[in-house]
Amino acid sequence: MRILIDMDDVLADAVERFFEWYERDFGIRYTKADIPGKHFYQIVPDEHKQLVRSYPHQKGFFKDLPVIQDAKETVEVLSRMHELYIVSAAMEFKYSFTDKYEWLDEHFPFIHWKQRIFCGNKHLVKGDVLIDDHDFNLSVFPGRPIVFTAPHNIHYKEYERMNTWLEAKNFFEGMP
Amino acid sequence: MRILIDMDDVLADAVERFFEWYERDFGIRYTKADIPGKHFYQIVPDEHKQLVRSYPHQKGFFKDLPVIQDAKETVEVLSRMHELYIVSAAMEFKYSFTDKYEWLDEHFPFIHWKQRIFCGNKHLVKGDVLIDDHDFNLSVFPGRPIVFTAPHNIHYKEYERMNTWLEAKNFFEGMP
Repeated sequence: MRILIDMDDVLADAVERFFEWYERDFGIRYTKADIPGKHFYQIVPDEHKQLVRSYPHQKGFFKDLPVIQDAKETVEVLSRMHELYIVSAAMEFKYSFTDKYEWLDEHFPFIHWKQRIFCGNKHLVKGDVLIDDHDFNLSVFPGRPIVFTAPHNIHYKEYERMNTWLEAKNFFEGMP
Repeated sequence: MRILIDMDDVLADAVERFFEWYERDFGIRYTKADIPGKHFYQIVPDEHKQLVRSYPHQKGFFKDLPVIQDAKETVEVLSRMHELYIVSAAMEFKYSFTDKYEWLDEHFPFIHWKQRIFCGNKHLVKGDVLIDDHDFNLSVFPGRPIVFTAPHNIHYKEYERMNTWLEAKNFFEGMP
């Protein structure tokens, strides 16, 4: 089975970087429990929205992001049983490429460069399963789309869901 | 029609960068006429092969490459008539991403980031036509593969061929 896996908020905890930079800039630390059903920029004061939305376009945003719990161990197991690709819509963020690549080298060294795709639009990429946190990627995927739980997607009803990488491990166990 | 276009030696003249760096290192300037049917590393002395093969892995190799003749004008025309994507196997070269992205911004600003893909293996990317210089990309493409002439591919017999971007323009003219 060919499994496509998104990076941000599926393997790498980008939401935490928003909280970290916002605390740096405004002295207030948010947590994921504060933003159910929302993107972070939606809950900050209007005068901060533009800055917060610019964070991922700034240098260093994607550097050394925390790894989502159990992602590394599960993806390593899956990579031995399935044809696995990391597919990140990195093209929106021109300073993200090297940080993302080095992050994969550090935390997912078993993902060969031949298994990495940085794209703009994921609807061109062929696979059996896509694990992603965004409706705009999942909705155009011609295979089996699976939403990976993040604060901004808890209300999605249209897709199979994985809340954790342990659930993902169980889901794929025994699949051909 | 969805047209996928490779970068190196299709839009960007990477072969010239090999000649330029080899001249910098060894004082001898080669031209494309010197390497029919070959990759450049195949014709240099054995003791230089490893260094020459390392060039594209070094920082700056892909920066400010010359644009292949008539590429810009033709691709701009095609982009108005077709669904067009730039698909580069950039993942092999971890220092290439930003240089390649900025090169597209400079010379092909009409190619939106949503139309850019940096991948390892092109066989996952869906399209109707692929214009590429390498057999390892063309041979696995499920659509219509078209070889764009470069010194190392002049002996390919298996594919439709475009020698120039003017030929490409004529080829696609009037296509749906």
